[in-house]
Amino acid sequence: MRLRHKPWAREKIEAHPQYIVPTPEDYQGNWKEVFNNNNPLYIEVGTGKGQFVTEMAKAHPDINFIGIELYESVIITALDRLIEAELPNVKLLNVDARNLSQYFTKGDVSRVYLNFSDPWPKTRHEKRRLTYQTFLKMYEDIMPDGGEIHFKTDNQGLFEFSLKSFSAYGMLLTFLSLDLHNSDFEGNIMTEYEEKFSAKGQRIYRVEAKYRS
Amino acid sequence: MRLRHKPWAREKIEAHPQYIVPTPEDYQGNWKEVFNNNNPLYIEVGTGKGQFVTEMAKAHPDINFIGIELYESVIITALDRLIEAELPNVKLLNVDARNLSQYFTKGDVSRVYLNFSDPWPKTRHEKRRLTYQTFLKMYEDIMPDGGEIHFKTDNQGLFEFSLKSFSAYGMLLTFLSLDLHNSDFEGNIMTEYEEKFSAKGQRIYRVEAKYRS
Repeated sequence: MRLRHKPWAREKIEAHPQYIVPTPEDYQGNWKEVFNNNNPLYIEVGTGKGQFVTEMAKAHPDINFIGIELYESVIITALDRLIEAELPNVKLLNVDARNLSQYFTKGDVSRVYLNFSDPWPKTRHEKRRLTYQTFLKMYEDIMPDGGEIHFKTDNQGLFEFSLKSFSAYGMLLTFLSLDLHNSDFEGNIMTEYEEKFSAKGQRIYRVEAKYRS
Repeated sequence: MRLRHKPWAREKIEAHPQYIVPTPEDYQGNWKEVFNNNNPLYIEVGTGKGQFVTEMAKAHPDINFIGIELYESVIITALDRLIEAELPNVKLLNVDARNLSQYFTKGDVSRVYLNFSDPWPKTRHEKRRLTYQTFLKMYEDIMPDGGEIHFKTDNQGLFEFSLKSFSAYGMLLTFLSLDLHNSDFEGNIMTEYEEKFSAKGQRIYRVEAKYRS
């Protein structure tokens, strides 16, 4: 995604602590305090402009959602959606996904969503892909045993890499579609990017991978 | 593949015992006697008209190959290829793939190839798919620890099923291409079917799956 510098973004983020949690490290092991309930927590790593996490929160009121996005200039669009939607079950974190273990502890997160993550196509950058072994270890460490990653992308190379990476980590593939929009999968919620690229006839790949307990 | 009844096929098969091994159960644990060497043995399950196994044998003279094909009316085309090519390192078996353990024992086979296997698209027929759990167990039992299955198909449903099946069996995906003919994979040898369907723009999927030892 092309980023534009928006100097006023930081100020806007800080003005909405009810949507973008300002000190997430304070809630490690205690996210129920933020949501005032004991519902399961699903996170989306790389939430972008927030369409997915917002629509998921509307469709699943008994689940808590957190969207994680590093870029201030992008997360403010997600913030606008939350202000508009007024949903009690979704929050955002403006933090680096590499530091998830500072904000969550074992069992805090029931499911991890990865949608159209940066493919980092050069082999020398493979460690940056959100399905690289070190990330899989990090997600495992914040979920209960048997936690799941739900991943979709239009990027063939990233999808091939990710299936191999899940396999090398010993994970179980519980769902797989090599052409999601022409499959019988129900309840798909599209990201902004997915709407745009699938309209151009691009195939969408989707997998659910489960940690073996 | 459409089958035509060819009443003379059995006679032709029996007339060429040097290519189509008549009593393969006699060589269980002792295939080196058939090939007169100690080279590794790769088998293709469902060898059809034999283009793949014949071309592989030409390209890899230090490997022994066996093509397994149930249908008499099909295997005779593969037989014609062998008669023509006069290769010392390839044989055929006119037997049912479900009975592999009658012909091979642990370690006899170093690699299993599955090419464009029958997809059996109906769920009630999934046990017949050559990547179903019972088949994976059978292949494992005739290979040494860490043996590999090399599988390609144009059938999306069968490929999705197979990746999940390998994963459920705990196998490691060591190679994966979701578009083989537009990948940098070298040395691909095409089957008759593959030539025909890829010419129509059909994607070819390919995976290498390794048993964990």
